[in-house]
Amino acid sequence: MNSEIIAIGSELLTPWRQDTNSLYITEKLTELGVSVAFKTIAGDRRKHLVSAVRTALQRVDIVVITGGLGPTEDDLTREAVAEALNIGIKRDPDIIAHLYARAAARRMTMTRNNEKQADVLDGATILANPRGSAPGQWLDTVYGDHRKLIMLLPGPPGEMKPLFDEQCRPRLEGILPKRAFARRTLKAAMIGESAADARIAPIYTQYQDVETTILAHMCDIQIDLFCAKPFASLAQTRVDELAERLEEELDDVLYSSQGESLEQIVLYYLGMRGATISVAESCTGGLVAERLTSISGSSRSFMGGAVVYSDQLKTEFAGVSPALIERHGAVSREVATALAEGIRLRCETTFGVGITGIAGPGGGTEEKPVGLVYISVSDGEYTETVEKRFSGDRERIRFFASHQALDLVRRRLM
Amino acid sequence: MNSEIIAIGSELLTPWRQDTNSLYITEKLTELGVSVAFKTIAGDRRKHLVSAVRTALQRVDIVVITGGLGPTEDDLTREAVAEALNIGIKRDPDIIAHLYARAAARRMTMTRNNEKQADVLDGATILANPRGSAPGQWLDTVYGDHRKLIMLLPGPPGEMKPLFDEQCRPRLEGILPKRAFARRTLKAAMIGESAADARIAPIYTQYQDVETTILAHMCDIQIDLFCAKPFASLAQTRVDELAERLEEELDDVLYSSQGESLEQIVLYYLGMRGATISVAESCTGGLVAERLTSISGSSRSFMGGAVVYSDQLKTEFAGVSPALIERHGAVSREVATALAEGIRLRCETTFGVGITGIAGPGGGTEEKPVGLVYISVSDGEYTETVEKRFSGDRERIRFFASHQALDLVRRRLM
Repeated sequence: MNSEIIAIGSELLTPWRQDTNSLYITEKLTELGVSVAFKTIAGDRRKHLVSAVRTALQRVDIVVITGGLGPTEDDLTREAVAEALNIGIKRDPDIIAHLYARAAARRMTMTRNNEKQADVLDGATILANPRGSAPGQWLDTVYGDHRKLIMLLPGPPGEMKPLFDEQCRPRLEGILPKRAFARRTLKAAMIGESAADARIAPIYTQYQDVETTILAHMCDIQIDLFCAKPFASLAQTRVDELAERLEEELDDVLYSSQGESLEQIVLYYLGMRGATISVAESCTGGLVAERLTSISGSSRSFMGGAVVYSDQLKTEFAGVSPALIERHGAVSREVATALAEGIRLRCETTFGVGITGIAGPGGGTEEKPVGLVYISVSDGEYTETVEKRFSGDRERIRFFASHQALDLVRRRLM
Repeated sequence: MNSEIIAIGSELLTPWRQDTNSLYITEKLTELGVSVAFKTIAGDRRKHLVSAVRTALQRVDIVVITGGLGPTEDDLTREAVAEALNIGIKRDPDIIAHLYARAAARRMTMTRNNEKQADVLDGATILANPRGSAPGQWLDTVYGDHRKLIMLLPGPPGEMKPLFDEQCRPRLEGILPKRAFARRTLKAAMIGESAADARIAPIYTQYQDVETTILAHMCDIQIDLFCAKPFASLAQTRVDELAERLEEELDDVLYSSQGESLEQIVLYYLGMRGATISVAESCTGGLVAERLTSISGSSRSFMGGAVVYSDQLKTEFAGVSPALIERHGAVSREVATALAEGIRLRCETTFGVGITGIAGPGGGTEEKPVGLVYISVSDGEYTETVEKRFSGDRERIRFFASHQALDLVRRRLM
């Protein structure tokens, strides 16, 4: 069976808003074995909605519609679906009573126009929506001699998602052939999408029954594996087998085999070893600290650090000697090393990280161009300092530098 | 005239990827006075593409298609449009020559399948694409007795955007009635979307000719004003008049009347006054430093600071006395004040900022719940410390705290 998702709302046709509900629904439908053939976005105009619904009914088996179920004049989904199917609508007294009770419980007066949320399509099953006022509707009907499933769901994601999971999913499972699935997510750092694909394509193409998707965010790669089978154990076996082979191939860059972020992995290994960490950041300006502290519980391993934008603060907070800065320049292997070693001593942590570089767009020279970054990790016994030349804009260079720093720490911990 | 944007590519029907080209095209079409009535996303299946194109031709005047112009078997846009319009395709020898020359210049051998990128629809104008291999196509034709404009554009945004601007836009301007427009963006901090709307709706609803859009990101509000008129000066006058009235109404929360970010505004005023700033962050973990240093040129005013997650580092880096922490707790008005005053002295800056709080989800108590944050700004003469109770998850609480800190600095500078 195939499907179409229709997102309704004029705000979704502006340059500023995007339909995101369809991503969630796509994931859930895929798990159930339903492919998504089309997505359509239409504004709050009855004529347009009728056109969108009719078009979908002509080309797919399952139509999932989000939005346009509220109480305002612009909420026209119910009327449009009725017109497209040429069926009637009845106002349901139980829903009206529920709407008044809901308003009373919130000490609000319900205006008359709210009653339109009680309009139910002939033959539809009402999908109760405890998180909002407008209920969803489920219609199992016939259009042009073909069976069609039509779902009307509210637009707010906080209402739509649980309503789909609790009420649409079980109904779909009852209708569709039984299917089980398994998923795995692998992650790798400091490798590009095409480089990763060139290495793993010869492997994953041997697994035609596992859907492999590579997603890249700058220098971070996520590999999603998905397999559907009649039995869960079969699907899991295939996904795990492919995951194992990919892990082996990407051994030098892979940091997660269960979808964790690089920050989580670093903090996990630090915690396991009872180790602590501090950072002295120049060009990343606090990004490494911010990323580590975005993880709840990071205070067990991350003690703190310094953002040392000025030369004076490199000395004040990380004990870098002014003579060293004078001799080699603030952006140098020597200063990165001194930052890592200095911040480690000042913060009395197991590891110290130092970063200095030129994030641009200004400040580059021929000798020290924009994108040149030195990253250093010290544990007191051994200090490793790497020189990198990242390309791209300020945001990209800063992210690459922070990612490289976290990855260096991870490698030291492994 | 109205339009439909069709994004083509099976990857756009997965849970992980989204069409974003349409946001750019929507903005440009709106400026030209063309409304976007529908957006459709279809996968790389010829039958589906023909259905999508035919549906669009039946309901709108202008059809903009992105993607599916590449050299692979999955690239079927040209064939699908030809089938939908029932017209022929010819392979263009000039484009073939260009493709071979392009490959040679890059020292690549061009495989035969690449030649399909030279297929041109009967009657179409070729839109040269210097940034990629597949050219775009422009078709001014008739379908069912109505004039239709059809644009075939490449999928990569780096190729699509300049191609639209350089080749489609001038052609559309030649066909559509003359129109000029003006835009303005206002921004306000620490106010919610509905609170802002309640205050400004009575004003902007008086300007029916100006399109007003409110966008909220957590506690940051962006108000976009857009007006189209036959003359630019007319549009500008209306937008400026409304902007002035909105600025007056939101005087207490507005920080930008030209779309600048809060970070940019803070750095701008610091620069104007020749002032410098440093930060001592506990619960925000470097987020304020990271936000300030994300702006190029921030090193003129931002000297650096400390991320003081542990109590020990609050003392070490910001000189907060252990007795004070002992007496009031690390999350307290007194410690926030001491952090601001201490970091200012240590960094020898005009202003010092101190932040301490409980970002959660763990660590809260009845007396000091998750979301409690103290934020302090000191200039040596006067230290202002505020207590806030933010709701939401860790990310939200940290963002609110960083935004409040930047806004406090801005208010001090005004």
